[in-house]
Amino acid sequence: MNIILLSGGSGKRLWPLSNDIRSKQFLKLFKKSDGTYESMLQRVYNAIKRVDSKAKITIATSKSQVSAINNQLGSDINISLEPCRKDTFPAIALATAYLHDVQKVPENEAVVVCPVDPYVDDDYFVALNNLCLQADKGEANLVLMGIEPTYPSEKYGYIIPKNKENTSEVLKFKEKPDSETAMGYIKQGALWNGGVFAYKIKYVLDKAHEIIDFKDYYDLFEKYDSLNKISFDYAVVEKESKIQVMRFGGQWKDLGTWNTLTESMEEKIIGKAIMNERCSNVHIINETNIPMLAMGLHDVVISAGPDGILISDKGESSFIKPFVDKIIQPTMFAEKSWGSYRVIDFTSESMTIKITLNPGSSMNYHSHQKRNEVWVAILGNGKTIVDGMEQPIKAGDVITIEAGCRHTVIAESELQLIEVQLGKEISVDDKRIFRLEK
Amino acid sequence: MNIILLSGGSGKRLWPLSNDIRSKQFLKLFKKSDGTYESMLQRVYNAIKRVDSKAKITIATSKSQVSAINNQLGSDINISLEPCRKDTFPAIALATAYLHDVQKVPENEAVVVCPVDPYVDDDYFVALNNLCLQADKGEANLVLMGIEPTYPSEKYGYIIPKNKENTSEVLKFKEKPDSETAMGYIKQGALWNGGVFAYKIKYVLDKAHEIIDFKDYYDLFEKYDSLNKISFDYAVVEKESKIQVMRFGGQWKDLGTWNTLTESMEEKIIGKAIMNERCSNVHIINETNIPMLAMGLHDVVISAGPDGILISDKGESSFIKPFVDKIIQPTMFAEKSWGSYRVIDFTSESMTIKITLNPGSSMNYHSHQKRNEVWVAILGNGKTIVDGMEQPIKAGDVITIEAGCRHTVIAESELQLIEVQLGKEISVDDKRIFRLEK
Repeated sequence: MNIILLSGGSGKRLWPLSNDIRSKQFLKLFKKSDGTYESMLQRVYNAIKRVDSKAKITIATSKSQVSAINNQLGSDINISLEPCRKDTFPAIALATAYLHDVQKVPENEAVVVCPVDPYVDDDYFVALNNLCLQADKGEANLVLMGIEPTYPSEKYGYIIPKNKENTSEVLKFKEKPDSETAMGYIKQGALWNGGVFAYKIKYVLDKAHEIIDFKDYYDLFEKYDSLNKISFDYAVVEKESKIQVMRFGGQWKDLGTWNTLTESMEEKIIGKAIMNERCSNVHIINETNIPMLAMGLHDVVISAGPDGILISDKGESSFIKPFVDKIIQPTMFAEKSWGSYRVIDFTSESMTIKITLNPGSSMNYHSHQKRNEVWVAILGNGKTIVDGMEQPIKAGDVITIEAGCRHTVIAESELQLIEVQLGKEISVDDKRIFRLEK
Repeated sequence: MNIILLSGGSGKRLWPLSNDIRSKQFLKLFKKSDGTYESMLQRVYNAIKRVDSKAKITIATSKSQVSAINNQLGSDINISLEPCRKDTFPAIALATAYLHDVQKVPENEAVVVCPVDPYVDDDYFVALNNLCLQADKGEANLVLMGIEPTYPSEKYGYIIPKNKENTSEVLKFKEKPDSETAMGYIKQGALWNGGVFAYKIKYVLDKAHEIIDFKDYYDLFEKYDSLNKISFDYAVVEKESKIQVMRFGGQWKDLGTWNTLTESMEEKIIGKAIMNERCSNVHIINETNIPMLAMGLHDVVISAGPDGILISDKGESSFIKPFVDKIIQPTMFAEKSWGSYRVIDFTSESMTIKITLNPGSSMNYHSHQKRNEVWVAILGNGKTIVDGMEQPIKAGDVITIEAGCRHTVIAESELQLIEVQLGKEISVDDKRIFRLEK
């Protein structure tokens, strides 16, 4: 099957582990059989490959997530890069054009679109494949997944099918209702709209050409900044009459808050922590190196990372956003295509960072205008290039880099550096990137 | 008045803020009128000076606390250094000999001895002065403070006075009782024995000479390692017949657990933290730089520092010790006579530390056998001496120090360094100290 995974930003609902550049789909919270942890993104990607080893997967996302995606799935993954955020219709149109013009998928093939972050079992991916096969038949222009509701949720739109068959025409769509109205819908046989649907490539390309004046993927990409924001539901779904829905009755959860997320964790504790036997319904996720001890707590989630420490009653954890908005500090941790970095100290005129480069990887060749840097290698070996001059680097070596100096480091083995940045206006935006002459 | 403050180790009952080298009396948890915080040690020291500006204060303590005491009270403070821990009788004998032979206090003057860590008001120090004056009269060899009990505590010994006068002879001592027995004592008019008493210097020196063969303070100090462990209560108090007790009815609290300590905190939050309005009876002490958010918690203490993060029901917080004993990691923070250090990263072959030197202060001139070090100055200025060579240092400078190299740094203004230690066997014990040739 062809599949487009929409990888959006989750913002701060899973603070302190999610932030502006690290969305919830990247959090490694799910235990694998080998004892290591995988993220929701890795979980979904691996499940698709398990169900359909030939699946052609494209991830539609913005620039800020590319490094993390490459870090978690490798550099071979197909990414339809949105130059900026423009809501779902432009994003899906761009990804569909990418499939057609870059991946050379014929226009009469079907593709299924789904968000990257539902918590599901393998039968969900079988259902995605069936959605694709149904779209292939051409009985309808759009085939939606209708998720059988487990409670009268106010968070989802509802689909009312014409009949109770597995595949049915759609009678009506309903906007997100209040709980009582939702109960009424459910009595009528309504299904949740989880934003999962399949169509033939030609169908969405035609819709896109009707709304946007563009030639092909490359042209659309160039024009992306100037497009209007418009949702796929508004531009396409609500106007389409040839539309079907297929029921899905398996597990489908939105792990959008600490309360729902911890329900799906296999273990009470991830990271360095101890709790005493008088704790009940407590979950701890500790991404810091600082050991943690919990005593006599009930119905509490504790989540700690370099950006913050949350200690919350589980029910209250849905309401953290306005409080988190008050907490302003630099991003303390980020996954990059070459590895990761962590801020370990900052003052008004310095920032000290621990950098870990994966074996064989390297940073961009870059310079800063307003800061000097000092690198102290603490593990591994590789080479540095500073103003064109190549030099080996190994644990114990010190490199000083003046403002304006172009520099990079290339890891042979895993390479760890302590980087001390020195200057009055330290900012991630103070960066110029250069092509490295070979 | 002459006063000996006994500054002992509190161990781990206030983990993660107290540890083997940082006892509870050094925690800066008490707000001053100027908005800054002071420790119990500073609070007691300043209160004594307020009540009696000419008070001659000596702190009896062990080597591990000297740096922290000098850091908090300055380098002029008189310290009777115990070469090792030998229980209260040798410690009090040594401090008394120190007063007589080093401070030249005449042997017919009285001295009052008290622990450094009760939480008290100024009237307590007036009472100490009265205790001293009473000992001066010579009606008894020992004058104890009897604290009026506020509940039938199992933690203290009890003193039963002969009568209900303010000053009375002692009828009997009672060991720490169970709660019911304690209630019986209280009905008989018993008072808590808080380990506070006054005597004339000659009295304790004579007792010491009876038990220990020594000439003077210097001789006693030399022999200290070989002394038997024996408590002052056992060696002196229980055998003395000429003994009085003076009542004290003011505030006197042992802030030995997070539960009792937080009761005496003026504020709910110290450090970077927010709590929502649905928290009740929650206290947060955050000594890390990581912001904290507490939501919907009740009767909880949260205490975070470089050594650990405790989240505990207040009642349960008395039982942390066996759990804390399981947490083994290097000391992450220490106050030194010259400032402080904080471990900001450690791996198997490196340790990265942030060092802050107070203006005008300097480290010992020292070397390490098994590690190289790199210093990156991030704030201030001063000078370094490396293998005898003096050099100025300022923010942005880098100094590399090979194993075996003798080195120190002298701060002019407040000086901050990032120190990267590199080696396979990094240990605080790998240190040789040298005399600096002028």
